[in-house]
Formats: sequence, C-alpha cells, structure tokens
Amino acid sequence: MLFRTALLATLIVTPTLAAPADPAATLRERALAGNAAWGLLESLTTEIGQRLAGTEAEARGRDWAVAKMKALGFANVHVEPFEIPRWERGVETLDVVGSHPQKLVVAALGRSGATPPQGIEADVVRFADMQALQDAPAGSLAGKIAFIDHKMMPTQDGSSYGPGGQPRRAGPSLAASKGAVAVLIRSAGTDYHRNPHTGATNWADGVTPIAAGALSLPDAEQLDRLLARGPVRLHLVMTPHMAGIGQSGNVVGDVPGSGDEVVVIGGHIDSWDLGTGAIDDGAGVAITMAAAKLILDSGTKPLRTIRVVAFGSEEPGVFGGAAYAKAHAGDKTALAAESDFGADRIWKIESRVRPEALPVVAAIVRAVAPLGVAASDNNTSRGGADVQGLAALGVPTLELQQDGTRYFDLHHTPDDTLDKVDPKQLDQNVAVWAAMLAVAANTPVAFGPLPADAVKK
Amino acid sequence: MLFRTALLATLIVTPTLAAPADPAATLRERALAGNAAWGLLESLTTEIGQRLAGTEAEARGRDWAVAKMKALGFANVHVEPFEIPRWERGVETLDVVGSHPQKLVVAALGRSGATPPQGIEADVVRFADMQALQDAPAGSLAGKIAFIDHKMMPTQDGSSYGPGGQPRRAGPSLAASKGAVAVLIRSAGTDYHRNPHTGATNWADGVTPIAAGALSLPDAEQLDRLLARGPVRLHLVMTPHMAGIGQSGNVVGDVPGSGDEVVVIGGHIDSWDLGTGAIDDGAGVAITMAAAKLILDSGTKPLRTIRVVAFGSEEPGVFGGAAYAKAHAGDKTALAAESDFGADRIWKIESRVRPEALPVVAAIVRAVAPLGVAASDNNTSRGGADVQGLAALGVPTLELQQDGTRYFDLHHTPDDTLDKVDPKQLDQNVAVWAAMLAVAANTPVAFGPLPADAVKK
Repeated sequence: MLFRTALLATLIVTPTLAAPADPAATLRERALAGNAAWGLLESLTTEIGQRLAGTEAEARGRDWAVAKMKALGFANVHVEPFEIPRWERGVETLDVVGSHPQKLVVAALGRSGATPPQGIEADVVRFADMQALQDAPAGSLAGKIAFIDHKMMPTQDGSSYGPGGQPRRAGPSLAASKGAVAVLIRSAGTDYHRNPHTGATNWADGVTPIAAGALSLPDAEQLDRLLARGPVRLHLVMTPHMAGIGQSGNVVGDVPGSGDEVVVIGGHIDSWDLGTGAIDDGAGVAITMAAAKLILDSGTKPLRTIRVVAFGSEEPGVFGGAAYAKAHAGDKTALAAESDFGADRIWKIESRVRPEALPVVAAIVRAVAPLGVAASDNNTSRGGADVQGLAALGVPTLELQQDGTRYFDLHHTPDDTLDKVDPKQLDQNVAVWAAMLAVAANTPVAFGPLPADAVKK
Repeated sequence: MLFRTALLATLIVTPTLAAPADPAATLRERALAGNAAWGLLESLTTEIGQRLAGTEAEARGRDWAVAKMKALGFANVHVEPFEIPRWERGVETLDVVGSHPQKLVVAALGRSGATPPQGIEADVVRFADMQALQDAPAGSLAGKIAFIDHKMMPTQDGSSYGPGGQPRRAGPSLAASKGAVAVLIRSAGTDYHRNPHTGATNWADGVTPIAAGALSLPDAEQLDRLLARGPVRLHLVMTPHMAGIGQSGNVVGDVPGSGDEVVVIGGHIDSWDLGTGAIDDGAGVAITMAAAKLILDSGTKPLRTIRVVAFGSEEPGVFGGAAYAKAHAGDKTALAAESDFGADRIWKIESRVRPEALPVVAAIVRAVAPLGVAASDNNTSRGGADVQGLAALGVPTLELQQDGTRYFDLHHTPDDTLDKVDPKQLDQNVAVWAAMLAVAANTPVAFGPLPADAVKK
C-alpha cells in the first residue's frame, strides 16, 4: 500500500500529458502506423506451427528467432542452450462403458504418466474442488479415477487462473497419493469447445505419476450429468512418455545502448503441442521484437541496451527463465518485463520498482494513456514467468497487462491459432511496449534495487 | 409472389391479436411456463450421445424415443424399420511434410473413401470455389490432393448453406473425376475452432470414392498461408469404410385426433458421430415431442391426429424421410413440418399451402406474434428434409424457421453438444410449435391439395 500511495501521489502532481515531440509519443504513433509484429507472428505460427519444449519443432523455432533477430538488425544474436527433461503426448482415448456407452474428449496434461497400452477401466469419483479431494481419506481412491470438477470463470486480469489452474498443477499428484489410478480434471479454461486445455502438472516427491488428463467443458459437464444418473465406469487409454533429455535454449538479441545496463524484454518461443502457440506465446515474442525494432529504427541509440529474449521451455516449468537468470545474474539488468498473456489490448501497467523510480513509471503511464492504458500499483508485478528468476535476484519488473477476458478460452488448446489474434490490438501492444521502452531505456533513474520485502513477494 | 401477396392481404385485413382465451394463446403461455423439451434433450444427448445412422447407437436412440413417447402418453408408438448402407469413420491424420512440418486437423466426410492404411503423400492444388474446380481440365488432378477453399458466411436464414455446402456434397466426386487422389475442403462452417464440419458427400455414378475430408477454418487458412509460400505436400491417412447394411428406422407416436387426417411433425433421431447431436437434431425431436405433449395434456382432443416422427438416418441421405413417405403415401396427411435447424428462436413462418388456407396460416402467425415470430411467404417452405418426400406427394408444409446465425458454428462438429442450447430459446420453439398445432390440428380448412406448380418446386 505504501507503493500504491506513492504512485497515486505522483500521478496527482504530474497530470499533464506528454508533449507531442516526446520520443515515447512518437514511437507510440509509429507503432500504430505499422510495425513488424503481425508479420513475425504470421511467420512463426505458419512456418513452424507448434513448438513443444525440447523437440525439433522448438529447435526450428529457435532457428526462426535467430534468423528474424538478425534480419531485424539486432546485435549479439545468439542461442544460450540448455537441456530439459522432455515429455511427449501419446494416444489418448476415453470411453464411458456400461449402459450409456460413448466417447469423451480428453487431452493428457504435460508430464502426465501413462496407462498400459490397452488402457485401464475404473469407476469415477468426483470432487467439486481441490479441498474436497484434499479431504478424501488416505487410500480412499485405490483403484479409482479421480475427477476434479473445479470451475474457472473468465477474469480480465487472469486472477482466476491461480485457483483455477491448481487442480491441473497439483490435483494429479494429490489424487495419486491417495491411490487413484488416473485423474481427470475439468479443463482450466472458460470456453465450451471440445478442445481440452493441456498444461503442466507437477508430481510431489515420492509420488509415481499416473495418467492425468483434461476434459473439455462440454465433456466435463456430460460426465457430471452421467454421474447424476449413477456410477460411471470409464476406459482410459493414455500413453504419453518422458522422452529423455531434450535440447532447448534461449535466443538473445540486443538493441545496443550507450551505457552498460540492460532492459530485458521478451516472450517464450515454446508452446504446447496442440495449437500453433499464437497467443501463448508467439504474440509475446512478436510484440517485444517489434517494439525493440522501433527503438532501433528511431535512429537514437538508447541509454540502456534493450535485450529481447525468446525464452525456451517455459511451458514445462520455466526452464528458459531459470537458465537466463543463472547465466546473467552478474549483468546490470535495470528492468525486466515479459509479454506472455496473449495479444488483446493492454489495459494497465503494474510495476515493482523502488519508490524513487515511480515518477518514471508515471511518465510511462502518461505516454500510453492515449492507448487506453491505466496505471496500476507498485506491488503486484512479477514481470512474467520467464523474468521471475531475475525478479528473485532483485531486478525490478513491469507488467504491461493484457486484457485476459478471453485468454483462457484459448490457452493451451488446439484453438490457440493465428486467427485468434486481432491485428489492431496487437498493434496497440507494440505501441505500449515501444513507448515504455522509449522511457525506460533512456532514463538515468535506477528502477532498483528493490527493498527486501518487495523482492521476497 | 402470388402467394406472398395473398398472405400480406390477409394480414392487413385481420390485424387484431388473438384473444387471451384462444387455445393457441393458452398453449403458447403454458409452453413458456414449462415443458418437456429440455428434459428430453438432456436425456437423449446424455444417455445416448452420438447416434450415427445405422449403428447400435442410433438403435439405442430409437429405443429411447419409443420409451419417451410411451411415457409421454402418445398412442400407436412403434418403430418402422428400414435398412441403409452404413458408413463408419476410421483413423484420420494429416501432416504437412517438407520444410514446414506440422499437423493439420481433418475429419472425413460421410461416405468418404479411404487411403491405404499407411496413407498417401501428394501435392496440393487449391481451388477458390467449385467453379474453379469445374474449370480444371480433365485429368489435371492426377496424383494430386484437391483443396476446395470456398468460404461460407453466417446467415440468419441459413441460405449460405446452399452454395456453402456444395463443395462438401459435390466437390469430392468432381475432383475424383479429374484424377485427384484425395480431396480436402474448407469446412462448410462459420466458426474458428479446430473442429472440422463433417457431413455427407455424394459420388456420381462411375466415380470411385476417394478420401475426402474437411479442414477446420483455422487449418484451411493455415494451408492457404503455407501455399502462399510455395508448393505444399501432405501426408494423409484416412481409413473410413462402408460397413455393410445397417438397421435403421423411424419412431412414430400419435396424439390421436377425432378425424382421420394427420399432421406430421418431428425431427431426426440420428446424428453425426462427432458431437452428441444436440442442435442437429435432438432439439427437433425434443421440441416437437414437447409441443405434442402440450396438446395431449390440454384435455381437448384435436380434430386431426398429431403424429410425431423421430426420423432415422437423415444425415447420410434422408433415408427415414423417404421411407416414411413411401409407407404413408396413402395416409390423409393434412400438413407436415420438421424441426431441423437447431433451437435458437423461431423468427418466421414459411408456408406452402393452397391459397384458401392462407387465413389459417395468418391465424397461426397471429398466435405466435407475441413470441417475436413474423410471417413470411407461401412459396419457399419445404418443411424440412424429412418431410420433403411427403411434400413431393403434394402434402402442404410449414417451416417454423429458427435463427440460423450461429447454427453453422456447430453443425456436424464435435461442438454440437447440449451446452450450446439456450433453454429460453428452446422454450420459445416449443411455444411456437404448440400454438401452431393448436390452430393447424383443429381447423377444418384443408391446407392442400397444392397447385401443381407449387408441388414441383
């Protein structure tokens, strides 16, 4: 609340709009007049398609990023390789057996265990939410398929994904620990199409992975209706597997500054395997590359280097973000921000900077106010998953938050494709990022270091 | 235009609303206060699921219809069996090969031929529409996969489905006749989800069926973008097969009248295999059963028997409608109308009756005007696919036309599920049908016979 008050005070004492000749305003208008983002996103999603972490498809995505960054004129373009445990989807079928025989649509969660090739047949036990599953006695799920039916609602700020994603992240491990032979969840999503939402699940130490899949919302509700009629028995075949060590990497490219500090921006190049990774997160890569390109083309070398990173292997566990933070802990990273929440319009800017830098945040907000962007507070920004490793080192962050109302209609589904991106809103994103960079990369003001209590959050 | 003028004149001279004590108005209000349709539709789509023509699933659908008609108190409930050539889906995968390797989503069309089990690999030739395919020289598609990219727009009256469905109905046969080894079409649909629209295709005499599939719109546009970059080679596996003779049948149930004439209403019990047949056409079965039930429960025996028919095997070629017309050519069928266009609100009533009966149509329109339904004309109604066989015998028809704006977002896809049905609009449908029946089954006026030029249309 201290930070929020400080920011509001700053806004109150400096209410005037930026003058037209302001470089941030100039870049903002240039971005709206035309920028590289759509072309980059169209190219990535069309030529590469899905880019599952650790696969040759992700490697083609890296090659693409290197080629595009070089073509855009970025300096210091290179790959910083690392390895990950690779997971791959197999067969997945789900049949209701008994008196109401029918197929349901299921997709394995990332890192799901497998059934035997012939599948398993078992009765379903439904849990309305994680608490209900938590309350199930030890061993009570022996031989059963647990069904976690937690419902998630759309929210503009994506806040429903915290609790809404928890059944996916932690439900399978919890159910396995109570003896379940498989787990199904109602997708952590908000649409009614027969396209389940995949995403990574986590296994606690000592828990043997079991088959874990997501049902589309129509299928989850069909299962609810069947359960209302009596016991339901399912035949599940799910044969994903861990596929050894996969090669991954971060692609780095710079718009060099005159000083020795770096502003790190980017998105992640990997995607889930079902769609083509347009909103998650081809858009983030394209937006930040296009914004940096506008700075490069402005003809004025920024004070701070702007580094665009196309992070690898975010989806299975933020491996790229962790690798970057480890490799660059010694850099003078002035600020970090990732775009990883689609491409609908940015509506607010969150920050986590030291109080002395709040006037600079206010200047950024003034520069993007004509784009419909509002100020937010100074204590919620985490900057995006791939820069949380930097944030944990004390690096200040910004979040240029997109409208997430429809993000979880598409997230981690086959429907994450180019057609879902609105070119006008994509341009607004680039304009906001370019204006932000024009201010943040040219101010002599330090955004950090952060007070210890802010870093810990 | 003669008929339209007559109808308009009728409306102009009798503009007063029906009095509250009017039986049609009473039934209309009862329907809105509660009716059987949602319960029937929930039961059918949940307990039976998909009901592909000629399969045991369709047979379970017939059993369901018999049981429900008996439970509702209908008389003369029975199955009128017939046989059909049965078709079943197999494996279907589609991969772009070469420098942009990726999977596309495809679904076989009904009656599609098959590739060998290992699939085929061939280059794609795109045609913007059927005319472009027609213009391709004989033999020019030898060894190629034809891609018909005709675009279909949403229309309230469904009129875009005539030309929009033509690539599906006739494109594969035409392409095969020019040497193509397989055909892909942009789905005859209007949504951007990764769920292709299946549906029957027809093979001209002498043409050997080839593999024929539909791409979802995102996949069709991905293929367009890839083709813009150069030649595209595909690996297609598609193994559906004709599965011999399948048992099918129409389920018939009556609300007996005091006279010897019959008003035939209904929907079709079969569906495609991808969804659960909620809008196509569980809704039509449920709406017409619920409307007839309201007549039965009104305590007044109608003049004409109201016959509800749950037609079998509409999807592969209107087999049930043809069987019914053949078996009942000698009946005194006063009027026929099918509900087979979803469950969104009815917005207009089309008719094809003799001019002397237009005042009765006008009375129906007056009875449903409070539901937002308008009059239409007297020369476009075909009554629905399953009563076209009756119409060809001279039976007059009505079409209580639903708003089709979003119908082709869902039609023939996995997304045709219960959650897509709006209970309020479903109730409006039942109210319109009940009010129509209250007038049409109780008037002594003959709707036919039709003039020869009307029957021919």
